[in-house]
Amino acid sequence: MNFHTRKWVKPEDLNPNGTLFGGSLLKWIDEEAAIYAIIQLGNQKVVTKFISEINFVSSARQGDIIELGITATEFGRTSLALTCEVRNKITRKSILTIDRLVFVNLGEDGQPRPHGKTEITYIKDQFKD
Amino acid sequence: MNFHTRKWVKPEDLNPNGTLFGGSLLKWIDEEAAIYAIIQLGNQKVVTKFISEINFVSSARQGDIIELGITATEFGRTSLALTCEVRNKITRKSILTIDRLVFVNLGEDGQPRPHGKTEITYIKDQFKD
Amino acid sequence: MNFHTRKWVKPEDLNPNGTLFGGSLLKWIDEEAAIYAIIQLGNQKVVTKFISEINFVSSARQGDIIELGITATEFGRTSLALTCEVRNKITRKSILTIDRLVFVNLGEDGQPRPHGKTEITYIKDQFKD
Amino acid sequence: MNFHTRKWVKPEDLNPNGTLFGGSLLKWIDEEAAIYAIIQLGNQKVVTKFISEINFVSSARQGDIIELGITATEFGRTSLALTCEVRNKITRKSILTIDRLVFVNLGEDGQPRPHGKTEITYIKDQFKD
Amino acid sequence: MNFHTRKWVKPEDLNPNGTLFGGSLLKWIDEEAAIYAIIQLGNQKVVTKFISEINFVSSARQGDIIELGITATEFGRTSLALTCEVRNKITRKSILTIDRLVFVNLGEDGQPRPHGKTEITYIKDQFKD
Amino acid sequence: MNFHTRKWVKPEDLNPNGTLFGGSLLKWIDEEAAIYAIIQLGNQKVVTKFISEINFVSSARQGDIIELGITATEFGRTSLALTCEVRNKITRKSILTIDRLVFVNLGEDGQPRPHGKTEITYIKDQFKD
Repeated sequence: MNFHTRKWVKPEDLNPNGTLFGGSLLKWIDEEAAIYAIIQLGNQKVVTKFISEINFVSSARQGDIIELGITATEFGRTSLALTCEVRNKITRKSILTIDRLVFVNLGEDGQPRPHGKTEITYIKDQFKD
Repeated sequence: MNFHTRKWVKPEDLNPNGTLFGGSLLKWIDEEAAIYAIIQLGNQKVVTKFISEINFVSSARQGDIIELGITATEFGRTSLALTCEVRNKITRKSILTIDRLVFVNLGEDGQPRPHGKTEITYIKDQFKD
Repeated sequence: MNFHTRKWVKPEDLNPNGTLFGGSLLKWIDEEAAIYAIIQLGNQKVVTKFISEINFVSSARQGDIIELGITATEFGRTSLALTCEVRNKITRKSILTIDRLVFVNLGEDGQPRPHGKTEITYIKDQFKD
Repeated sequence: MNFHTRKWVKPEDLNPNGTLFGGSLLKWIDEEAAIYAIIQLGNQKVVTKFISEINFVSSARQGDIIELGITATEFGRTSLALTCEVRNKITRKSILTIDRLVFVNLGEDGQPRPHGKTEITYIKDQFKD
Repeated sequence: MNFHTRKWVKPEDLNPNGTLFGGSLLKWIDEEAAIYAIIQLGNQKVVTKFISEINFVSSARQGDIIELGITATEFGRTSLALTCEVRNKITRKSILTIDRLVFVNLGEDGQPRPHGKTEITYIKDQFKD
Repeated sequence: MNFHTRKWVKPEDLNPNGTLFGGSLLKWIDEEAAIYAIIQLGNQKVVTKFISEINFVSSARQGDIIELGITATEFGRTSLALTCEVRNKITRKSILTIDRLVFVNLGEDGQPRPHGKTEITYIKDQFKD
């Protein structure tokens, strides 16, 4: 799994107990997964359809750096399933895992549309620049 | 199920496709569920531990009013399980359902602590003022 | 008065003195009142026209849960007057009261339009689900 | 009245009808008035105590530049009363007026404390740099 | 240089070390400079094209009041160069200076368009109200 | 240069002209660069000291996916210099480049402290998971 996006946990991301607010984390994950889906499907019109069980394994504190990892696990006809892990960038301790996030590819009419993809696209030379 | 908190879908809540951003919705739900757990357990130190499958049934658009409903379904020794539905306030059409959100009651030391509750507490006269 | 929307006071809502920022509270109230007006008037195009004296009775601190109560007090031809109270959800201590918020019902042209309502609409079975 | 702080109305400030959200405007005013009070009283611990009638005279749209003007009107023993006007920077059309915002000067203990001021302090050479 | 817009450093503006987040400050400056350019060029369609070296001279802390000063330094055919200083409103200590921010005036087609201005416009009676 | 963090341009990130607000972009860059510096220096207490010329090469629109690339260019005794590029993830078109961002390593007392690093640290196996 490749980890791309990183976040620096700031005061604005905390719950009143002073740890990372779960809701902020879920918002970051949904954005990162949508980005991954858009890149894979080559289409900006995608929507989150389903998220499987979410386990909050450990928490994060102010100043922690966390990173989000996403990988495609299954290409359906109009859908794409992803798996996700969030971890502490420094200690690599797992913070949260989600087995399955399903996105649906939409057409201009807002209805599901076949995307024609069957495997992960690597944007050429991504790590060779 | 009682529906309390309402949201007015504003431009700042939209994804680039112009519908309610799933991540914003998840953030609202996590806050509302935490509030419900705090009230039931009489303790501000609670954390989200687990969220079961999330089905995004329908979407919401700018200007829609949505409402969030939460009910306790099971009191564990240190945990509390909730169920959640989000729907359009006007049309009552379901937007999202979550079967099970589990919160854990923490002590001052940040460790799970028995909460001693076994049933839903209704704050007296809530709708009679 | 029915209290619906709840807020959990988070770090992002505080003023530099560590109590709830008055401006954040006013923003929450304006949204809640607009929602109430939209539901009563059955029209999304409403605007805040007037807010009467606001008394900040007591403050709120990080971690507090507060709830917002709104009730219609007067139906004009194109307007609707509401009254508002914000209080601590747990202690029920009053935080702020506003005697009168006036919203105006607009037509497609952005001009005031008669709304034809004369009394509070209760959305059927709201607390019976 | 001197107008200092300016805002550029961005998508994040709009209500679902596409005009400036009243709640955002109130939040800006409360911050600007608190700043004015802090400068005048030479004390960072001030709280909003009272806001008189607010008239929303006209609205603002995306891209508009608005400016906020505040002036002290009365120095009490522990309080300070301000008056406020918000207007379009270009057209100078009034958007909102508030006759009276009252701030209270607090001591370290969070209780009202005499501030000893009786007139407006002009920070030297403010417009001469 | 005239200093107009003021900011009250709130928890939401801090980095995890508890001082003003540099990124928040840059966002405030870009908005203030855009406002200045719009007023001078009499056109809402302006874009930031270039920002010269930025020196972070000193930092700001929660509760500080800072003020932003901008002045036009050069009118090009389609561009406008500004200079900027941010300082503590009370102590007047410099926080940041930027020698040169260049904005470009755009036409309806999004292409650079001559603005026809050659000197600073003072909006009449600005400080005489 | 490795590109890690990605952003999906949402309505909340736009300026009133409907393109990515430069200030939002600068805020994202400052966070990403701080994260990079913290990882390299193994210390959370770092501050932005200097940013060299910023060229806004092209703009981004709602729905665009952009990615931020940072690389260390020079290790000083207490400082670290970075270079940055932001580009469109899909088209790879450059959006912005910054030659040099300088961060300073601080000790517990908030004063510059030698960091003892002389070259880029690669967190082991980062792309092999």
